[in-house]
Amino acid sequence: MIKGIINKAEKIENKIIDYRRDFHKYPEVGWTEYRTSSIIAKRLEDLGYEVLVGRDMLNEEDRMGLPSEEELKQHWQRAKDQGGVEEYLEKMKYGLTGAVGVISNGEGPTVALRFDIDALPIQETSETKHNPTNKGFSSVNDGVMHACGHDFHAAIGLGVAEIIAENKEKLVGKVKIIFQPAEEGVRGAKSIVTKGLLDDVDFVFGHHVKDYEVGEISSGLSGYKATKKFDVTIHGKPAHAGGNPQDGNNALIAASTAVLNLYSIARHKDGETRVNVGKMSAGSGRNIIPDEAKMVIETRGSTTEISQYMYNKAIKIIKTSSEMQECTYDIKQMGEAPSGKSDQVMIKLVENLTEKLGGYTLSDIHSSGGSEDFTYMMSKVQENGGKAVNIGLGASSIGDGAHSHNFDINEKAVQKALVLLSTLVFEIQKNHESLKL
Amino acid sequence: MIKGIINKAEKIENKIIDYRRDFHKYPEVGWTEYRTSSIIAKRLEDLGYEVLVGRDMLNEEDRMGLPSEEELKQHWQRAKDQGGVEEYLEKMKYGLTGAVGVISNGEGPTVALRFDIDALPIQETSETKHNPTNKGFSSVNDGVMHACGHDFHAAIGLGVAEIIAENKEKLVGKVKIIFQPAEEGVRGAKSIVTKGLLDDVDFVFGHHVKDYEVGEISSGLSGYKATKKFDVTIHGKPAHAGGNPQDGNNALIAASTAVLNLYSIARHKDGETRVNVGKMSAGSGRNIIPDEAKMVIETRGSTTEISQYMYNKAIKIIKTSSEMQECTYDIKQMGEAPSGKSDQVMIKLVENLTEKLGGYTLSDIHSSGGSEDFTYMMSKVQENGGKAVNIGLGASSIGDGAHSHNFDINEKAVQKALVLLSTLVFEIQKNHESLKL
Amino acid sequence: MIKGIINKAEKIENKIIDYRRDFHKYPEVGWTEYRTSSIIAKRLEDLGYEVLVGRDMLNEEDRMGLPSEEELKQHWQRAKDQGGVEEYLEKMKYGLTGAVGVISNGEGPTVALRFDIDALPIQETSETKHNPTNKGFSSVNDGVMHACGHDFHAAIGLGVAEIIAENKEKLVGKVKIIFQPAEEGVRGAKSIVTKGLLDDVDFVFGHHVKDYEVGEISSGLSGYKATKKFDVTIHGKPAHAGGNPQDGNNALIAASTAVLNLYSIARHKDGETRVNVGKMSAGSGRNIIPDEAKMVIETRGSTTEISQYMYNKAIKIIKTSSEMQECTYDIKQMGEAPSGKSDQVMIKLVENLTEKLGGYTLSDIHSSGGSEDFTYMMSKVQENGGKAVNIGLGASSIGDGAHSHNFDINEKAVQKALVLLSTLVFEIQKNHESLKL
Amino acid sequence: MIKGIINKAEKIENKIIDYRRDFHKYPEVGWTEYRTSSIIAKRLEDLGYEVLVGRDMLNEEDRMGLPSEEELKQHWQRAKDQGGVEEYLEKMKYGLTGAVGVISNGEGPTVALRFDIDALPIQETSETKHNPTNKGFSSVNDGVMHACGHDFHAAIGLGVAEIIAENKEKLVGKVKIIFQPAEEGVRGAKSIVTKGLLDDVDFVFGHHVKDYEVGEISSGLSGYKATKKFDVTIHGKPAHAGGNPQDGNNALIAASTAVLNLYSIARHKDGETRVNVGKMSAGSGRNIIPDEAKMVIETRGSTTEISQYMYNKAIKIIKTSSEMQECTYDIKQMGEAPSGKSDQVMIKLVENLTEKLGGYTLSDIHSSGGSEDFTYMMSKVQENGGKAVNIGLGASSIGDGAHSHNFDINEKAVQKALVLLSTLVFEIQKNHESLKL
Repeated sequence: MIKGIINKAEKIENKIIDYRRDFHKYPEVGWTEYRTSSIIAKRLEDLGYEVLVGRDMLNEEDRMGLPSEEELKQHWQRAKDQGGVEEYLEKMKYGLTGAVGVISNGEGPTVALRFDIDALPIQETSETKHNPTNKGFSSVNDGVMHACGHDFHAAIGLGVAEIIAENKEKLVGKVKIIFQPAEEGVRGAKSIVTKGLLDDVDFVFGHHVKDYEVGEISSGLSGYKATKKFDVTIHGKPAHAGGNPQDGNNALIAASTAVLNLYSIARHKDGETRVNVGKMSAGSGRNIIPDEAKMVIETRGSTTEISQYMYNKAIKIIKTSSEMQECTYDIKQMGEAPSGKSDQVMIKLVENLTEKLGGYTLSDIHSSGGSEDFTYMMSKVQENGGKAVNIGLGASSIGDGAHSHNFDINEKAVQKALVLLSTLVFEIQKNHESLKL
Repeated sequence: MIKGIINKAEKIENKIIDYRRDFHKYPEVGWTEYRTSSIIAKRLEDLGYEVLVGRDMLNEEDRMGLPSEEELKQHWQRAKDQGGVEEYLEKMKYGLTGAVGVISNGEGPTVALRFDIDALPIQETSETKHNPTNKGFSSVNDGVMHACGHDFHAAIGLGVAEIIAENKEKLVGKVKIIFQPAEEGVRGAKSIVTKGLLDDVDFVFGHHVKDYEVGEISSGLSGYKATKKFDVTIHGKPAHAGGNPQDGNNALIAASTAVLNLYSIARHKDGETRVNVGKMSAGSGRNIIPDEAKMVIETRGSTTEISQYMYNKAIKIIKTSSEMQECTYDIKQMGEAPSGKSDQVMIKLVENLTEKLGGYTLSDIHSSGGSEDFTYMMSKVQENGGKAVNIGLGASSIGDGAHSHNFDINEKAVQKALVLLSTLVFEIQKNHESLKL
Repeated sequence: MIKGIINKAEKIENKIIDYRRDFHKYPEVGWTEYRTSSIIAKRLEDLGYEVLVGRDMLNEEDRMGLPSEEELKQHWQRAKDQGGVEEYLEKMKYGLTGAVGVISNGEGPTVALRFDIDALPIQETSETKHNPTNKGFSSVNDGVMHACGHDFHAAIGLGVAEIIAENKEKLVGKVKIIFQPAEEGVRGAKSIVTKGLLDDVDFVFGHHVKDYEVGEISSGLSGYKATKKFDVTIHGKPAHAGGNPQDGNNALIAASTAVLNLYSIARHKDGETRVNVGKMSAGSGRNIIPDEAKMVIETRGSTTEISQYMYNKAIKIIKTSSEMQECTYDIKQMGEAPSGKSDQVMIKLVENLTEKLGGYTLSDIHSSGGSEDFTYMMSKVQENGGKAVNIGLGASSIGDGAHSHNFDINEKAVQKALVLLSTLVFEIQKNHESLKL
Repeated sequence: MIKGIINKAEKIENKIIDYRRDFHKYPEVGWTEYRTSSIIAKRLEDLGYEVLVGRDMLNEEDRMGLPSEEELKQHWQRAKDQGGVEEYLEKMKYGLTGAVGVISNGEGPTVALRFDIDALPIQETSETKHNPTNKGFSSVNDGVMHACGHDFHAAIGLGVAEIIAENKEKLVGKVKIIFQPAEEGVRGAKSIVTKGLLDDVDFVFGHHVKDYEVGEISSGLSGYKATKKFDVTIHGKPAHAGGNPQDGNNALIAASTAVLNLYSIARHKDGETRVNVGKMSAGSGRNIIPDEAKMVIETRGSTTEISQYMYNKAIKIIKTSSEMQECTYDIKQMGEAPSGKSDQVMIKLVENLTEKLGGYTLSDIHSSGGSEDFTYMMSKVQENGGKAVNIGLGASSIGDGAHSHNFDINEKAVQKALVLLSTLVFEIQKNHESLKL
């Protein structure tokens, strides 16, 4: 079967590259991936998958960091204008993006694959040495760019879906292919997990492109920091700073006090802690006591408990800083992810598989170095006794690295990704008993 | 002569109201009063005044809070399109606005009058009960509005100029009528004073519309707080807040430390102190250590010395807060005014004059309650042994008061202003010896 | 009668100087003036006064800034050992110090005089050029000194009492001579006022020695700032700073946040504001998260309302700073005084009297420049429609001024004080009707 | 030979317990261990060691956290009164405590052992269930206590010295037994290392009592955090807070700003960071602007580089906070230790030895959890290509743990310690070649 998969991967390589370039050209930020999601849904349908979209795949209450209704409308319209599939677009209105394909054969474990699909609010470079520029598929959406490889992820997802569909009768159990919206800012995974989509999953895996050589892979990434992202607005009362200073409730003093105390939250004996007030804006005029201050904050911890510790302390600081100046405050949850690690047995399985497949080398990197909300899915499956792994996939990224305006990937990685991720599904089902011991 | 002036004032009342409405319709913020200034200059020329504009009336180095070159260009073009007088516009390029008219007869003291002419960056209301709306002269310049009465001041200036010109042969000495740009934010007066325009002036007076009844005046305002306005930018170094927090130089921590210490500057035994950080904006993204923070600040004191004390302390705080986080900083002067008070003999003269004129009542308000850069001119004249007064003129302002989007004045005040300010010139010249004893 | 009083003052001058030296030699800080008070009480009794001490003259709940029970005991014993009058000492146990003498004749207004009697926690100099040193009456109580002239005040009080007693039949009404404890730190007056001792008083006056020439007086001091004195303890939780920092509740971070916010309380348009954290001590060891922080604080305002504004803001800051670090806090009231001013009619009366008496000159100083709790008595009397004045009395103080370790007064001021204060009582009674119009 | 050592250890057990109790009864804090050091020196001399004390064993410039000269004198006198050995006391004046014994035989590697000898400023409990109380050897030095087991360490050092001396001819190389002063606060080791005493050492080992069972040992502790201890004094200028607040330079505002910024120093990607302001005291009186603030600070890092990073940031914060308030500052180094870890080959050697000896069990604890200045010696030896290990020795400590007022150890650990540490010397020499490969 492996041979068949390799052949198939070769055959569809160019199609998948075309998908990747199409997604790259029409990037959409989190919760506005209307065009991307509708094309994926239609394709899954065509491949014979049961397709879940909208409220069938996510819990709308748990979406975090949603754009304004106005923006959602505008981007929906743009998706329609740019060739989104209308039938599906209708079901995705107001930020109900993403798509899930389900396929099964016989009785056996359920394996889930996750591919994230959103872009970033970055203006793509127009340098001619940038591949998307000189090949003509650079972003047409102003200020939006696939600068983190999710265009590649989404395209690979469609390729893997095609290969699995073709080999459907070799499945022994169920496969769920999850195209997740809003990974940037860790905003989307929670809503899929709380909808219950991972409840019956025995094994889940994902991958992310990395700047290693094509063919080099990390067999399992761990050490994802848990994180909370939230926006704070402190509401005070304005007053003329020269004439009636005593009448103001100074939101900027409140915010400044909060900043100093947030960074001062005590370190934790059990692991790493982080906090950042990434943005602040306050006040309306030079001679007015500032009556509003907005802060864009994140906390992190090397475990979910430590992240919660940081968050709880942060909330207390914001509350009391506000009260100190007789101000009120709002907190808006903008993103969240637990900590996460790949299971050792899955890492071993990936390593064995690459050996069997040939043509891959193993990186010794297993540290994730950041946060990612695939950990929601990993954690849910692991809680239920299942296993999870997130693979680092060398795509020798070009440019100044992820999230830079000239980020690009080596498309030779397409075939490597298709083969590894497709065969892994069957390999897991074959070995499922020993994996779950 | 008083009778003649009263008659003349009645005759030109409507013309002056037209000027006021015209200026109101085409408001221009500080250093962009190209149209306003050029019309004033042409009119002064037509009335027989020697006219000073551009580098002849101000020291360009001492202009504070100048808009960007780009904005200056755009507004100059707008002025031209909206009927500015080309001959003068050419001399006012790049923020050289304002105009001065000089007239003299015989030997005698020099009397200066000051009228400020700039508008505010406020969007005018479109409520129909707002007079400019229903009479059709509301602002056509988006986001700009005469919300502080300087349209009235400028028009009165032209009226007073006309009356004085008509009575030129009754002058005994020189008269300078100064149309000052950029009073808002106390940015313009200094540049006129350092140019030397007040050096030979024996008496200077000004006025400001007030919300008292039409006909009620404050015979002399005092207690103007000295002030410094300045913008600060702190430059740090960004870093990934999760991955490499130790590599950042956190401009927001620096700014927050500065905020708390600025408001903590010790009170002063000799009088009132004020400080305000009216606006702050910092940072570029949630997970990036903030590498820049901008602050919009003012300090005040009931004397120029106390204002300087506050400013010196503030600068030290900004410097050391920045250094604490290994950041650098820029400070840009945006405005400045000394403290100021009206001379008692001038107040008395105004009171006597109103009695002589009839039809005026005296307010018992003599406290200014704020800052105003006419104090630069007052101080300069007083330093040289001259006398100064700033008059509060009842115009029963309508709306929510100065600087609100529905501010308006009662045009019945026009005649009261014309008569009082014109006769005051002659009254001063007549009494100049006893005034300067 | 004036002549008689002058003669009497001459006669008792040396006795009063002896009293002053005796009090100087045995100084006692606030609420421990056992010896001083008992001697005064006995003397008042001998002079024929009705004498009030202990719970009869003050409300023990309202005493502020009381020393520990241990200290009260020790100082009581010292007073006994140093010649305190036992009969009265018994009634003064545990900080019930001070004494009041009441005398009356016929029907008429009630006049109260106030003399403060406490010393300061200052070590007196041993320089030989210091008069108390070379005349042998310097303090024998280690670390305690009359460095503010209250030894003089107390002695003058006894002299005035003697003169009034001798002229009892010339009184037309009642006289209360109040010897007040614990003026330093504004801790004592409130307890006397809330006991009701000023409720029936029509006129109250006091005096304070000043560094003007002997014979020069300020006829009435005003502008006393209202003030609140309080001690704060923040209670946190200790933890090993290296091992378990997350377990601590850091009282020092709470206190530091409070400090910066306290000094940042907004200035007030209606007058002067002050705040000071005069002392802080926190923490137990280098590697322990500080679990306690103590602060010694005062707020002031040029009116009682502004003082209350400052105090209310301060309390909110302390509360929320503590809560921010999950700490608790205690606040202990240590002193309080309202603002205060002398009545114009009383000032005029004093001026007329000095003219009548001859030998006095008038200072043009009427600004108090500080706080003093005689304002409690002034305010109470003024609230009830009465009149009050506090006189500045030149005693050409020697040394580095009040509260310095070499402070001293010129004893030639004794006679000036006796005459002025004694005659003032009769002068008030004589003029009481016009004074209260 | 092992058998001989075991026998000897049994024989001297009671003597060593007596030493321990004697040291416990006369505890001395760092740099005042005159009595302890002189007794040790004399005993080493009697056992035939070459003895180094005073300037021969340490570099007096590098002693940190020295008590005042006055205290040094007083404690020296106390040591003399309590039976210190005069001959050595003379050489130890002014804080030159500690002792080193050197012995050698034949050619071979140099092995150093380190024992720390100082007590803590803790008042010992007087509970009767506390062994030292009911056996009569509790501290007679008020406020000083061996609450960290250094009494045991010192006594064991003497026992090991005796055993080695008896087996001198079995040595193949040199042995240095270092009795180190001032380990508490990590103040003493540096001065011995910079004197050069470790320069020729091939192997160094130490031990610390732990609360494991008697017989249980940790074969090698690692993860010692690097640390810097320092005291800061900020010098401002006092002023009357009510009268002349503008004249003060507020040291408490400076210190409060420093506190908030110190705890805000950015976390480090390479490992753990710690900072603590353990104590603060500031100000002189409620109504005086605080003119001085003292802070007792420590920084730590999981590597020496991170500790230095924290320290450098801290110093910058203190400097700029002081300058912000126009204050000056002093920094006094009070202690310092690098990070440290035991070498794997040495750990293995200890494990093999315990197996050979029998009667020991191995703890799986290898994490130190704190700081300790033995790391100076370990680092120096490791830099020169040598090996180091620090052993955790179960003494089933009683009471509330190290540094508590009822801390105690189980004296049954004496024999376990004597045997293990003595045999280890010979074991190292025997295996020295393979250890240093």
